[in-house]
Amino acid sequence: MPKITRDQVKVPVDVAADARETYIDNYMAATHGTGRLMLFACDQKIEHMNGDFYGEGIDIADLDPEHLFQIGSQGVCGVLAGQRGLIARYAADYPEINYLVKMNSKTNLVKTAQSDPYSPQLHDLETVLAMRENGVNVVGLGYTIYLGSEYEAAMMSEAGQLIAEAHENGLLVVLWIYPRGKAVTDEKAPELIAGAAGVALCLGADFVKVNPPKACEDSTSAENLSIASKAAGRTGLVCAGGSTVDAQTFLTQLHDQIHVGGACGNATGRNIHQRSLDEAVRLTKAISAITLADYSVEDALKVFNGEEDFTL
Amino acid sequence: MPKITRDQVKVPVDVAADARETYIDNYMAATHGTGRLMLFACDQKIEHMNGDFYGEGIDIADLDPEHLFQIGSQGVCGVLAGQRGLIARYAADYPEINYLVKMNSKTNLVKTAQSDPYSPQLHDLETVLAMRENGVNVVGLGYTIYLGSEYEAAMMSEAGQLIAEAHENGLLVVLWIYPRGKAVTDEKAPELIAGAAGVALCLGADFVKVNPPKACEDSTSAENLSIASKAAGRTGLVCAGGSTVDAQTFLTQLHDQIHVGGACGNATGRNIHQRSLDEAVRLTKAISAITLADYSVEDALKVFNGEEDFTL
Amino acid sequence: MPKITRDQVKVPVDVAADARETYIDNYMAATHGTGRLMLFACDQKIEHMNGDFYGEGIDIADLDPEHLFQIGSQGVCGVLAGQRGLIARYAADYPEINYLVKMNSKTNLVKTAQSDPYSPQLHDLETVLAMRENGVNVVGLGYTIYLGSEYEAAMMSEAGQLIAEAHENGLLVVLWIYPRGKAVTDEKAPELIAGAAGVALCLGADFVKVNPPKACEDSTSAENLSIASKAAGRTGLVCAGGSTVDAQTFLTQLHDQIHVGGACGNATGRNIHQRSLDEAVRLTKAISAITLADYSVEDALKVFNGEEDFTL
Amino acid sequence: MPKITRDQVKVPVDVAADARETYIDNYMAATHGTGRLMLFACDQKIEHMNGDFYGEGIDIADLDPEHLFQIGSQGVCGVLAGQRGLIARYAADYPEINYLVKMNSKTNLVKTAQSDPYSPQLHDLETVLAMRENGVNVVGLGYTIYLGSEYEAAMMSEAGQLIAEAHENGLLVVLWIYPRGKAVTDEKAPELIAGAAGVALCLGADFVKVNPPKACEDSTSAENLSIASKAAGRTGLVCAGGSTVDAQTFLTQLHDQIHVGGACGNATGRNIHQRSLDEAVRLTKAISAITLADYSVEDALKVFNGEEDFTL
Amino acid sequence: MPKITRDQVKVPVDVAADARETYIDNYMAATHGTGRLMLFACDQKIEHMNGDFYGEGIDIADLDPEHLFQIGSQGVCGVLAGQRGLIARYAADYPEINYLVKMNSKTNLVKTAQSDPYSPQLHDLETVLAMRENGVNVVGLGYTIYLGSEYEAAMMSEAGQLIAEAHENGLLVVLWIYPRGKAVTDEKAPELIAGAAGVALCLGADFVKVNPPKACEDSTSAENLSIASKAAGRTGLVCAGGSTVDAQTFLTQLHDQIHVGGACGNATGRNIHQRSLDEAVRLTKAISAITLADYSVEDALKVFNGEEDFTL
Repeated sequence: MPKITRDQVKVPVDVAADARETYIDNYMAATHGTGRLMLFACDQKIEHMNGDFYGEGIDIADLDPEHLFQIGSQGVCGVLAGQRGLIARYAADYPEINYLVKMNSKTNLVKTAQSDPYSPQLHDLETVLAMRENGVNVVGLGYTIYLGSEYEAAMMSEAGQLIAEAHENGLLVVLWIYPRGKAVTDEKAPELIAGAAGVALCLGADFVKVNPPKACEDSTSAENLSIASKAAGRTGLVCAGGSTVDAQTFLTQLHDQIHVGGACGNATGRNIHQRSLDEAVRLTKAISAITLADYSVEDALKVFNGEEDFTL
Repeated sequence: MPKITRDQVKVPVDVAADARETYIDNYMAATHGTGRLMLFACDQKIEHMNGDFYGEGIDIADLDPEHLFQIGSQGVCGVLAGQRGLIARYAADYPEINYLVKMNSKTNLVKTAQSDPYSPQLHDLETVLAMRENGVNVVGLGYTIYLGSEYEAAMMSEAGQLIAEAHENGLLVVLWIYPRGKAVTDEKAPELIAGAAGVALCLGADFVKVNPPKACEDSTSAENLSIASKAAGRTGLVCAGGSTVDAQTFLTQLHDQIHVGGACGNATGRNIHQRSLDEAVRLTKAISAITLADYSVEDALKVFNGEEDFTL
Repeated sequence: MPKITRDQVKVPVDVAADARETYIDNYMAATHGTGRLMLFACDQKIEHMNGDFYGEGIDIADLDPEHLFQIGSQGVCGVLAGQRGLIARYAADYPEINYLVKMNSKTNLVKTAQSDPYSPQLHDLETVLAMRENGVNVVGLGYTIYLGSEYEAAMMSEAGQLIAEAHENGLLVVLWIYPRGKAVTDEKAPELIAGAAGVALCLGADFVKVNPPKACEDSTSAENLSIASKAAGRTGLVCAGGSTVDAQTFLTQLHDQIHVGGACGNATGRNIHQRSLDEAVRLTKAISAITLADYSVEDALKVFNGEEDFTL
Repeated sequence: MPKITRDQVKVPVDVAADARETYIDNYMAATHGTGRLMLFACDQKIEHMNGDFYGEGIDIADLDPEHLFQIGSQGVCGVLAGQRGLIARYAADYPEINYLVKMNSKTNLVKTAQSDPYSPQLHDLETVLAMRENGVNVVGLGYTIYLGSEYEAAMMSEAGQLIAEAHENGLLVVLWIYPRGKAVTDEKAPELIAGAAGVALCLGADFVKVNPPKACEDSTSAENLSIASKAAGRTGLVCAGGSTVDAQTFLTQLHDQIHVGGACGNATGRNIHQRSLDEAVRLTKAISAITLADYSVEDALKVFNGEEDFTL
Repeated sequence: MPKITRDQVKVPVDVAADARETYIDNYMAATHGTGRLMLFACDQKIEHMNGDFYGEGIDIADLDPEHLFQIGSQGVCGVLAGQRGLIARYAADYPEINYLVKMNSKTNLVKTAQSDPYSPQLHDLETVLAMRENGVNVVGLGYTIYLGSEYEAAMMSEAGQLIAEAHENGLLVVLWIYPRGKAVTDEKAPELIAGAAGVALCLGADFVKVNPPKACEDSTSAENLSIASKAAGRTGLVCAGGSTVDAQTFLTQLHDQIHVGGACGNATGRNIHQRSLDEAVRLTKAISAITLADYSVEDALKVFNGEEDFTL
C-alpha cells in the first residue's frame, strides 16, 4: 500500500501558518495517508435531479438520500462529496465520514443548446466554516468549472477566490473541470482534458476531476490521460466515473487510469450508489483497493464479489 | 394526533449551537408539535396582484388585507407566510400568529414567453432578524426557486446562502420550487417534481412546497407524489393548494397527499382567503384536522361545515 | 379638520424601538397631524429633464430651481420630494421644509419601446442619514418601481431593502408605482392600479403614489380608485397629479379621489410649480385645504383665488 | 476681478461639519477665489487615446505626458483634471497644481453604433482620499455621464453616490454630462443641454461641464446656453472647449459663454495642450484672464500673444 | 551596465508612506537595479491551455509545470509571472524567484468572433498579500486589459482599483494591454499600441506589456514602438515576445525594441520555456544581457550559445 508521511505532503504556500496542521490532517484523512483520492460523488440530486436515483436499472434503495450516507459510512471512501444542505441534514448521524462540500451546482434542465452552462456558488465559505465549527468533519470543498462556456469568467473567478480562502483555512479543494459550451465541439479531446488539468493547477486546486479523454488513432484513453496528469503538475488528477457499467469494465478502466494514465485517484458516483447497499459498499471497497492499495483488477474483483474484504 | 417530542426534532448541523433551542422552538411551533406543517400562503398580493383578492367568486372581505391576519388569528394554521412588509404593517395587532417571511416575490405581469422567471430577494436577512428582535414572532423564511429558468443560478445561489444563515439563526426555511421557463415543457411531470424535492434537500431546506405532480397512465398524482416525498429525504414535502375548488375535493386531495403521497403538510392560500372570514376559519380548521391530527376526510368535512370544532 | 394623535399612528413593527418617536415625529410632520399626505413632487428635473420647467405655458419663474423651494417654503405642503443633490444645494436656506428624498430617478430619453424602464437608486441610505445628521429636516424617502418592466426585480429588491432600513431609522417611505414595460398594455387598468397598491403594502411602504385608474363602462376613475385604496390596506394611497390642468378641474378630481376614491392625500408637481410663485403658493394652499382640512371644492377654490387664506 | 469671500461660498448641506473648511479651501483654490472655474482637461489619453497627443497639427511636445503638468505648473489654471494614475506618476514633481481626479473613463474604440456608451468608475473614492493623505493636492473629482445611454442608470448611480461621499470629505465634484446613445438623435439640442444641467444639480454636483448647445433659428448658441445655466441653479455650468480652433475664435466663444450664456467658467483640453509649452501656457493665461478676471477678448488676446502677462 | 540608485526610483504618490521602502525594494529586485524589466511570462497554461506546453517543436520537458520554476531559478529573470495558484504550488521549493502574480486570465476556447474577450480577476488582492505574509517573494501583480472589447469597462475598472491598492501595499503592477474585439480591425496598428501605452499610464501602471506595432510604409516596427514608449511617459513599456522564433531573430528584435523603440525591457514566455532546460536557461541569460546590461546582439548570442556566461 502506497503510504506517505505527514512531512511528505506538499503544502501549498497559500495555506496559512496556523492552518498548516489542519491542511495536513485533511490531506491525510482524505487520501487515507496514500496521497491518492477515492472520491464518492453524491452531488447528482441537483446536477441530474431524480433521474440518477430512481428508474429502470437503479436499485430502489437509491431513492432514499440516506442511502448515500450509509454507503459512505459502511464502505471505504476517501471523501463523500455533496452539497452543503444535503450534508447538513445527515452528518449528525454519520459523523465518521470525511465530507467534501460541493460549493456550486446546477440542474440539467437548461441545455447547452439554449444557454452555455453556468453553475453558481450556492453559498459563501463562511457557511461551511461555521458547519465545521459545529463539529462536522469537513475536509475540503468542490467546485465545477465549465471551460469554454460564455460564463467561464464567472466560474474561474469564484473558484480562484475559493481556493485561496479554503487553503487559508486548511481545507482541500477539488475542481471538477469540464470543457462545455457552444465554443466546444469535442468535450473529450485529449488536448482539452490536458488543458483543463493545467487550469486547475494555475488556480491552485489540490485535485482536479476530469472526464477520461477519448482514445485517438494511435493512443488509448489512458495514454492520453497520462499527458493530462503531467500537465496537472502538483495538482492530483482524478477521473470521473461516468454512467454505470459492469464492475469488471469499471475496475479495469480505473486500474489503467492510475497505472497508465497517472491518475491519482478516482471520482465515482452513479456507478456506486445506483446499486443495493451491500453491492455499493463492496464496490467502494474494490475501488479503494485499486486506488489506495494498488490491487490488481483481479484482486479487486474478489473484493467486489465478496470473496475477500478490504479495510484500511 | 401524531406528536413528536423536542428531542425527536432532527436539527440540521448548520444550526448554530446557541440557536439550537430556538430552532426547536420554531419547529415545534410551526408544526404544532406534530412534525407536519400547515402553511397558510398569503404572498399572492405580489405574485398574482389584486386578481386573487377581488372579483367574481371572491368574498368581498378578501379585499381588505387585514382579512388574512384575521384568518390567521382565528383559524388554526402552522404559519402565515407573507412578505416582510405586509407582516410589518399588521403583526403588532396579531402577535400570536407564527410568521414565515417570504423573502422573494415577483408579479405575474411579465410572462414566461417574454422572459424566464426570476423572483428577487426583496431584502436581506438582517431586516428579518431586526424585526424578530423588535418582538415579532418570526419562525421561518420562505423562498421561491424556478428550476429550469435561465435565472435558476441566481435563485439557487440566493436560496443556498439564505438557508445557511437562517439555520445559523434558528429559523426554519420553506422553499417553493416550481420548474418553469422555456426549457420546461411539462411543469408537473412527476420526475421534475421529484427532482425539485431533491434539490430542496441539497440546499438544506426544512420543507419544500411543490405542485402536485400530474397523474400518469398507471399511477395517480398522489402515488407519483410519494416518489417525490422519498426523494426529499429529511426535507418535509408539502403540496401547493392551487386555485379554489370545493371543500370536499380539496380535503380529499389533501388526505391523499399525506396518506398516499407521503406529504408532510399542506400549503394553502387562495382556497382559504377567498372565502368569508367565518368560512375561511372553518376551512383552516378542517385542513389542520387532516394535516395535524390525521382526521378522515369525513370528519374534517364536519369541521368545515361547523358541525364540530377543531382546536389544538 | 381631521386630526390624529401620536398614539393613533400605526407604527409598523420594523421601526426600531429607539426610532419609534422619530417615526411618529416624521409621520405627524409630513401629514400635519392628519394622517393625510400633501406631497409636492419636485423630481422632474431628472424624470422629464428641462421640458417641465421651461417652455410654452410655463411661468418663467420655474426655470430657476429655487422656485421649488420658495413654493415649498411659502405654501402649505406636507413634504417636498426631490433628489438628494437638489435638496443638498438649497436646504440650508429653507430649513423649515419637510424633505422627502427621492432615492431613484431616470431621464425620459430612452423610451419603453427601446428598453423597459429601470430607475436606479442614486446613492445609499447612509448618505441621506448623514444629511439628516447635518441638520437637514429629512422626514422620509421616495422610490419609483415600474411593475411589469423586465427590470422589476431590481427595483423591487432595492425598494424592499430600502423600506426596511428606512423604518429602522425612523424615516417614512413613499413608493411611486407605475405598471410600465413591454408586458403592460394598459398602464391605467384599474386592476393594475389596485395590484400596484397591494405590492406597496407587501413591501411595507407608508404611502404609495399611483396614477388614477381609468374609468370603466360602469365605474368612474374615483370609484375604481376606491378598490385600489382598499387593496393598499394600511399603506396610504395618494394619486399623481399628472400634467397641468385648470385649478377647478384639478381640485374637483382631488376631492373625488379622497372622498370617493379613499385616497389619503395627493402628490402634485407640475400643476403647482409651472405657475408663478404667488399662484403656485395659493394652489398648494387650496390643495392642502382639501387634503388636510376636508374643504369643499368651492371653498378650496376661494383659497386658490386668494379670496381667503389657508394656514395650519 | 470678481472676488468672493469664504463666507459667500454656498456650501451644500451634504458637506460634513468637519469637512466644511476643507470644502471652502478647495472651492476657493479651484476658482482662485472668484467662484469661476478654469478647468484644464487632461483625460484624453484614455478618452481619445494617442490621437489627441500625436499627429498632424499637434506640437511634438504633446507626446510626452509630462507636457500636461508643465502647462499646469507654468500656466494659470483652476484645476488640472486627469485620471488618478496619471496624477500619481507626476504629482510629486508638480505639487503646486490643484488636481481634479477624473474618476471614470472609456476609450473611443467601441462606437455608439455598436454599443451605447458606458464609462466605468476606475477605482473607489478611498484610493483618492489615500492619495490626498499622502500629500497630493486633490481638490475635487470628475465623472462623466452619458445621458440617454442604455447604461445611464449605472453612471447616474455611481455619480450620485460619489458626489455624496466626496462632499462628506470636503471635495468638489464636476460632472461631465453628454447626451449620447441610440436614443439621442441630436446631442447638442438646447433642451437636452439644459436638461443635462438640471440633472447635474439634482445629483448635487458643484459644476457641470456640457457641450455648447447648437444655435437655433432665432437664438445663438450662447443664448441657448443661458437657459441651461439657469436650469443648473446653484450648480455652476462650464462649457467643453472641443477640438482645436484659432485663439481668437476660441476666446470669443468663451467670452460669449460667460457673458451671454451665464457660464461660470470653462473646461479646455486639446485647445491648450496640442500647442508648444510656451504657447499653451500663454493660452491658459488668456483663458483665465477672461474666466477669472473678466478681461475683454481683445485684452485676453494680448495675453495670448505675449504682449502682456496675466497672473493672479 | 545601466544602474540606478534607490533614490532615483520615481515612486508614485499612491504608494503609502509606510510601503515606500517595500516598493523601492520590489522595483530594484524586479529590475535588478537597472530600471529595466526582464519578465518571464508563465501564464499560458490558462491563456493558451496545454497547446503551448506539449506538441511538435516543444521540448518534452515543458510538459512538467515545474520546468517553468527550474528556468526561473537557474536562469536570469527579473520576475516570473504566473497565476497565484501555480505559484502557490511551487514557491516553497523556489523561494529565490521574484514572483509577479497574474491576477486575471481566460482560456482561448471562446473566440472573439463569438464573444468579445473578458479576462476576469481570479481572486482579490488580500489573497496575494496573505501569500506574501506567508513568506512568498511576491514583488508585483499583472493584469490583462483588452481595449476595445465590449467588456473593456469591467477590466479597466478592476485594473484601476488593483493598481491603487497594490501601490498602497508597495507592490509593482504590470498591465498587459491588447486592443481586441469586434471594434478592433487592426490589433497592431501603431496608433492603437501607442494608445494602449497611454491608457496604462493613466491607470497608474509601473510597466505595460504591449504587442510590437506593425511596420508601416515608412517606419519600422521599432520606430513605431518609440512613439508608444513616449506616450507611456513614466510607465515603462515592454514588448511581448510572441511565438517561438530562432534566437538570433528574437534577440535582434529585442535589441531594436530597446535601443530604437525605447522599450524598457521585455516580456517573454513561449520563446523561453518551449526549449530544454539548459537552452531555456541560456536564453534567459542572453535576453537579460541585452535588457539589463546593454549587450550587443552578437555578444548576447555568445551567451545563448554557451560561449560565455552571464550573471548579475
